[in-house]
Amino acid sequence: MSTESPKPAVRRTRLTPEREAELYEAVLAILREVGYDALTMDAVAARTHSSKATLYRQWRGKPELVANALRHNKPGSLEGVDTGTVRGDLHAMVCQADAEQMEKDTALLRGLGHAVHTNPELHRALREVLVEPEMGWLDEMLRRAVRRGELAADNPAIPFVAHMMIGGFLARPLIEDRAPDAEFLTHYVDAVIIPALGV
Amino acid sequence: MSTESPKPAVRRTRLTPEREAELYEAVLAILREVGYDALTMDAVAARTHSSKATLYRQWRGKPELVANALRHNKPGSLEGVDTGTVRGDLHAMVCQADAEQMEKDTALLRGLGHAVHTNPELHRALREVLVEPEMGWLDEMLRRAVRRGELAADNPAIPFVAHMMIGGFLARPLIEDRAPDAEFLTHYVDAVIIPALGV
Repeated sequence: MSTESPKPAVRRTRLTPEREAELYEAVLAILREVGYDALTMDAVAARTHSSKATLYRQWRGKPELVANALRHNKPGSLEGVDTGTVRGDLHAMVCQADAEQMEKDTALLRGLGHAVHTNPELHRALREVLVEPEMGWLDEMLRRAVRRGELAADNPAIPFVAHMMIGGFLARPLIEDRAPDAEFLTHYVDAVIIPALGV
Repeated sequence: MSTESPKPAVRRTRLTPEREAELYEAVLAILREVGYDALTMDAVAARTHSSKATLYRQWRGKPELVANALRHNKPGSLEGVDTGTVRGDLHAMVCQADAEQMEKDTALLRGLGHAVHTNPELHRALREVLVEPEMGWLDEMLRRAVRRGELAADNPAIPFVAHMMIGGFLARPLIEDRAPDAEFLTHYVDAVIIPALGV
């Protein structure tokens, strides 16, 4: 039975945004080189000249560090987007997509694919850090459109906007062997999502 | 310089459909057990009590055998579907989807993911045997709808029906941690694809 007082839950502390970005880039580079299973906190510490204590203090563990590095890298988020129309918001989101970056991401996610399904902690971290926040911003965006009167609250396509969007991102490599870019995705939004929502 | 006359290109010969199905099931079982890289024609021959000569005569090689086994297994094809309406055709396609089978397929495709991107022959076989035929049937289905006057030839959503459909199949596991089933996909067709096409 410890008599120490519990540590405060603050994990985001003193790293500058530049330093944080540097650490994330190093994590992604190691991930591409050796994959998730072979990535160690020791290797990240060595590559970034930081102490393992710092890494654990900031990110708790490897699944959280990797999930945050992926989030840092992710193109096409609705975070902070609010243009005043559904079409403007979706265009703003997909305009962040860069084809070259997306090729690299696809290679990265492919390497993660196996680990995501065999490692429940990585799975949970990716849901918490990537999937759930993004779904939250999408919900917020659609709720704003309903409040503005742009969208009827019972529009049957509302629950499927994420599915349509994911189709745009994932189907092009399968069908055309090419990564999606901002031009393709903007066209997809106009041809598919806007008509399906009827806005 | 050989003086032999070229062998006829016929590869589909004497196997009964039942025997072919049996072979495909065995290939998929081995794939699930050991993955693509470790699957050997010897193992398939041993498991199915057939000769390697038969396997090579029928399928040319491992990439083609695996691609055909996956095609045999695939739920949700438009092959042979012609109900007279776009909505009917899409419903007929997705009604083939069985949630339990889809879970197994997802596990299978996950295991293949890495090999698809490192093995150009498997990549090519999957495109030839799975992707291109399916895209052909989809094109045919949409062309029929245009001929019937159900769809305008310049409807901007036409080039993206496959992307929307793939979104329905792939996004649910990512968003909800569940495989799509016929009920979900039928609802998705009605809420998304039909409104996007405006039929």
